[in-house]
Amino acid sequence: MSDITPNQVPDARDLDEFRRNGYQLIDWIADYLGGLEDRPVVESVAPGDVRAKLPPHAPAAPEPFAAMLGDLDKIVVPGLAHWQHPNWFAYFPAMSSPPAILGELAAAGMGVQGMLWSTSPAVTEIESHVLDWLVDLTGVPQSWKTTGPGGGVLQMSASDSTHTALVVAREQCRRRTGAPAEQMVVYTSNQAHSSVEKGANVAGYGHVRLLDVDNNFAVPASALETAIAQDIAKGLTPAFVCAAVGTTGTTAIDPVREFGEIAAIHGIWLHVDAAYAGAAMICEEFRAYQDGLELAHSYTFNAHKWLATNFDCSIFWVADRRPLIDTLSIVPPYLRNKASDTGEVIDYRDWHVPLGRRFRALKLWWVIRSFGVDGLKAMIRGHVAEAQALQAWVDSHPRLEIFAPTPFALVSFHHVDGDDATAALADSLNAKGVYVTPSVAGGKNYVRVSIGSTWTEPAHVERLRDLIDQSAN
Amino acid sequence: MSDITPNQVPDARDLDEFRRNGYQLIDWIADYLGGLEDRPVVESVAPGDVRAKLPPHAPAAPEPFAAMLGDLDKIVVPGLAHWQHPNWFAYFPAMSSPPAILGELAAAGMGVQGMLWSTSPAVTEIESHVLDWLVDLTGVPQSWKTTGPGGGVLQMSASDSTHTALVVAREQCRRRTGAPAEQMVVYTSNQAHSSVEKGANVAGYGHVRLLDVDNNFAVPASALETAIAQDIAKGLTPAFVCAAVGTTGTTAIDPVREFGEIAAIHGIWLHVDAAYAGAAMICEEFRAYQDGLELAHSYTFNAHKWLATNFDCSIFWVADRRPLIDTLSIVPPYLRNKASDTGEVIDYRDWHVPLGRRFRALKLWWVIRSFGVDGLKAMIRGHVAEAQALQAWVDSHPRLEIFAPTPFALVSFHHVDGDDATAALADSLNAKGVYVTPSVAGGKNYVRVSIGSTWTEPAHVERLRDLIDQSAN
Repeated sequence: MSDITPNQVPDARDLDEFRRNGYQLIDWIADYLGGLEDRPVVESVAPGDVRAKLPPHAPAAPEPFAAMLGDLDKIVVPGLAHWQHPNWFAYFPAMSSPPAILGELAAAGMGVQGMLWSTSPAVTEIESHVLDWLVDLTGVPQSWKTTGPGGGVLQMSASDSTHTALVVAREQCRRRTGAPAEQMVVYTSNQAHSSVEKGANVAGYGHVRLLDVDNNFAVPASALETAIAQDIAKGLTPAFVCAAVGTTGTTAIDPVREFGEIAAIHGIWLHVDAAYAGAAMICEEFRAYQDGLELAHSYTFNAHKWLATNFDCSIFWVADRRPLIDTLSIVPPYLRNKASDTGEVIDYRDWHVPLGRRFRALKLWWVIRSFGVDGLKAMIRGHVAEAQALQAWVDSHPRLEIFAPTPFALVSFHHVDGDDATAALADSLNAKGVYVTPSVAGGKNYVRVSIGSTWTEPAHVERLRDLIDQSAN
Repeated sequence: MSDITPNQVPDARDLDEFRRNGYQLIDWIADYLGGLEDRPVVESVAPGDVRAKLPPHAPAAPEPFAAMLGDLDKIVVPGLAHWQHPNWFAYFPAMSSPPAILGELAAAGMGVQGMLWSTSPAVTEIESHVLDWLVDLTGVPQSWKTTGPGGGVLQMSASDSTHTALVVAREQCRRRTGAPAEQMVVYTSNQAHSSVEKGANVAGYGHVRLLDVDNNFAVPASALETAIAQDIAKGLTPAFVCAAVGTTGTTAIDPVREFGEIAAIHGIWLHVDAAYAGAAMICEEFRAYQDGLELAHSYTFNAHKWLATNFDCSIFWVADRRPLIDTLSIVPPYLRNKASDTGEVIDYRDWHVPLGRRFRALKLWWVIRSFGVDGLKAMIRGHVAEAQALQAWVDSHPRLEIFAPTPFALVSFHHVDGDDATAALADSLNAKGVYVTPSVAGGKNYVRVSIGSTWTEPAHVERLRDLIDQSAN
């Protein structure tokens, strides 16, 4: 037995110590975010570099907080890609913001569990309420509110939301057709996010059709119709179609309404993946891109991409919550309680795979209130305006060509000299203190510039433009 | 268009404001945690009470941080069950601690993504390293280290870990036998956590056998053998068995070694769910309960239950990482990178369903360092000693009977007068300022007392004992 008794361990639990350490950490974060521009966007690290700095065994005795803080500078920061860097133009944004960081802190500080309404009613009710606010804000169907037949829930990632939709759709299809999952087919774009194919594999679907796209990287409705007809002729069972509103590669937009009409004919579940672009829908002028949502069964968008709320905060809406709950509800004795038994409340445990859940709605609530809806709209519009200006500049550049349209804040282009010159252009940019994503679509290389970091100002985009100009030889 | 331009929105992004707000929130949390004893453990709330305090629409204009902070007191706290309350004896503990809260804050502050090694190497390497530390600390097989054939990864919850194991096992079984998921069978205790049955449904298994338990609420190996033989005789395909080391109801322990030997004969995947009790294994004297782990294919325990690290922080270990990665890996062009292509690094995106991931290892690293291993051991031993003392007292009480053994820090008992008196006893306790779980196992009511809140001192357990004595009329 150890000779330390519980009474000698209070250091790590001491709340005065927590205050002092907390202030220091708040300052450290402000300094980190404020000082990012002085660091490379992506630190130079070789595999194993970070682990080599760590001791082989866990320490037996307590270490002071100063040691943790020091190791942030010595071990952690030199091993990061700085996603919040103002020169971050890679992937999609993983926006964070001061109110979101503080919302996460408040949730961790309270340390409550929202698996059932009764395990902390405020966690459930604030989540339902804020997601109902977002129904109004984004112009999705009113019936998706928790006060109607549908409802919203926060999941960890769009991968989780899409996987959940796939599982519910599989069970609906099984009940309707009797087909085993191995005979069921999922349809999506060959430009869809990998989470659709991965989720289909995880859910046990036998077939995934990655449909060909048109010149704008969207799936023509005819391609979906043809694929479904071919599968029916083979004796397979079409079960699930995912329409992308903003693909990961180029933010292409599938025809949601046409997909929905085709899906309805065959009793297929329509899921809409707007993981990135969903945030833009708080601005009325983008909503034409989501026309037809009233035909969808489920929808996901990530507040942790482009709505200033740090990961994880993926919104999942269903048009009808009953099949969701029917598929996922299991009530053991230790979770029985009066509020649930009467059916008066939402128990979010039945809306996703995990049981336990953090108070994630708190940060989203704080972000909306701290920016205000007008502030969030201005932020989105600012990013899109900067992207469209960059797109226009690329279009007029003699050595560059637009690769795909820019409906939102992602600019895709390639070099007129072809694939190798395009790859070289991306590498050259990434060696000059900005970070863009070299990518491939339709067999061609392109440079993918995503504008939307919280700390990116118009001046950073102008500098990027100059660097592109210098590098595009 | 809004008349606010991006340049007018800096309030929510202002880092000096962040410092001021952050200090205030740190103080608020310290006051909240330090003041819990003055509040009821569970606030009195009726369905809709919280939402009734929220405005029907999101605010157009920004609100000051003081409004958020004020609403924590006015709206949030009166709508919580206080999981960190020192008189919390319900469910399992959802431990939090100052270093864990600060680790969560630091991770949110940096706002990096650990989906690939290359998207922030420190996130992956610190996670691998700390989970390798925990292999040594908990005495699980050395081959589970990331430096060996296995490896550990942090998931959100044990539900996610178990679901992931079920999916990999399903694919292994399909490849080996050709059976469809609908013919595959999952075996677990009728005392197993609901996540096993839920995960099996989500993963599309056709059959789940909830096996009968003995008087100690553990499954006898013979029950597993018999069930497997019956299913084989029916033409079904046994695929997955989950052994519980510490069931949710009573912390009963299934015979892992015998389960493993039976599973090996039939090529069945053995998963071990030690969601709660896994933390105890840092103390050598409990490790006999996990004898046989070298026969397991996967294992989960939650640092967010009993290892002072706030939710979410579920550890998932596999004995062999290849089938996991084979099942879950999908590499689209925008995620291709040199480090991954050479196979030199771990890309945790391939170890679970979601793609994006927070820097969750940071808080676990900070907890282990801040308490020290000796401090964590002393904490666990303190809780177990208090539970065993309570158990001994119950055993000697004329109106109470022990309901199940107390190998860890959960005490289960009932009233000698039977089920109604037992339910009344739980209700009476919960009306007196403590919170215990009324539960049912084997058709009988019992009172379930879980000791392990971070702020519970021996005096709180003594007071609970006095309340039990008063209430057990």
